[in-house]
Amino acid sequence: MVRGRPREEGIDDAVRVAVRALLTETGYQRCTIDAVAARAGVGKAAVYRRWRSKAELVFAAVIHPVELEPPEDTGSLLGDVAAVLTVIESSLDGVELRQALPSLLADVRADPALEARFGEVFLGRERGYLVLMLERAVARGELSRRPDPALVHAILLGPVLTWLHLFTETPPSGGLAASLASPLHAAVAALGA
Amino acid sequence: MVRGRPREEGIDDAVRVAVRALLTETGYQRCTIDAVAARAGVGKAAVYRRWRSKAELVFAAVIHPVELEPPEDTGSLLGDVAAVLTVIESSLDGVELRQALPSLLADVRADPALEARFGEVFLGRERGYLVLMLERAVARGELSRRPDPALVHAILLGPVLTWLHLFTETPPSGGLAASLASPLHAAVAALGA
Repeated sequence: MVRGRPREEGIDDAVRVAVRALLTETGYQRCTIDAVAARAGVGKAAVYRRWRSKAELVFAAVIHPVELEPPEDTGSLLGDVAAVLTVIESSLDGVELRQALPSLLADVRADPALEARFGEVFLGRERGYLVLMLERAVARGELSRRPDPALVHAILLGPVLTWLHLFTETPPSGGLAASLASPLHAAVAALGA
Repeated sequence: MVRGRPREEGIDDAVRVAVRALLTETGYQRCTIDAVAARAGVGKAAVYRRWRSKAELVFAAVIHPVELEPPEDTGSLLGDVAAVLTVIESSLDGVELRQALPSLLADVRADPALEARFGEVFLGRERGYLVLMLERAVARGELSRRPDPALVHAILLGPVLTWLHLFTETPPSGGLAASLASPLHAAVAALGA
């Protein structure tokens, strides 16, 4: 299909739409950078300028972009934890991602340079925002010290990732993020007590 | 290499050793059931009788067998959580598994019948043992009600899995399971309060 080429600022959106469509229609293996460029109607060079690998392109299109919104300040650590869990759940949910994630992680694992870049770009960005959340809780007097952000990252991300991508059952009544907010707030509070 | 065929009762051990060796030497893709049978010096039929798929064979050889030991009764929920986390950490640790797990999960995800069997055999078994742990805590008066075992499963497994298989850093000083025991005990206690 021939389409008009989107302007520079429209490329990211066009790529995102193309990745999601290709994951649904053909799966991760056949969602190549060339196929994405063709589907989005943009030049391959434009795609390679933005993304060094297919895994990165798919991650940014489906899970979250490199630039994240700072976490919402709800006024309390419990509220902030609930908001972060909702963001994590919506980032990791979806049948296309459920199909694609193991292959994406296998690609990342097979390439140490890519793995290092992933840790820096995506995980590092996520963790930076958790530090903001934790420092707000310390400033409010809800935590007496800032816990290890890596542990907090594992404690908030891990249960959502495990439920959505390892378990086969439907989320608990009331929703996954809402069900995890109170226990995982207790975990973070215990770390920073 | 020609080796004597192990007796029936030795087959599981021989297969386990062969899987680990092949994962280290050749990686998951080339660790086929045929290669495992040849390396273990057992008939392919014997391997297929025990394991319906390569993913199941590798999971049982590297992560945990179908029959798990019941979780240790340490006398307190905090101690039991710490013991379970230590078991989870040692099951999921190791460079071969770090390389193999994404491909193994991709195989499972690609086959709904295999995914259902995995949920039933491995995750179901794990969850059954967590129920024992939770019921002991209720009987001791440490929890006022038994929390949803699926949520507890995600809360204990998720952070360990995420740290060992998604993060690239070394475990926190003092060890991963020990660092997570107190916050995740607080999470389980909050769920069962």
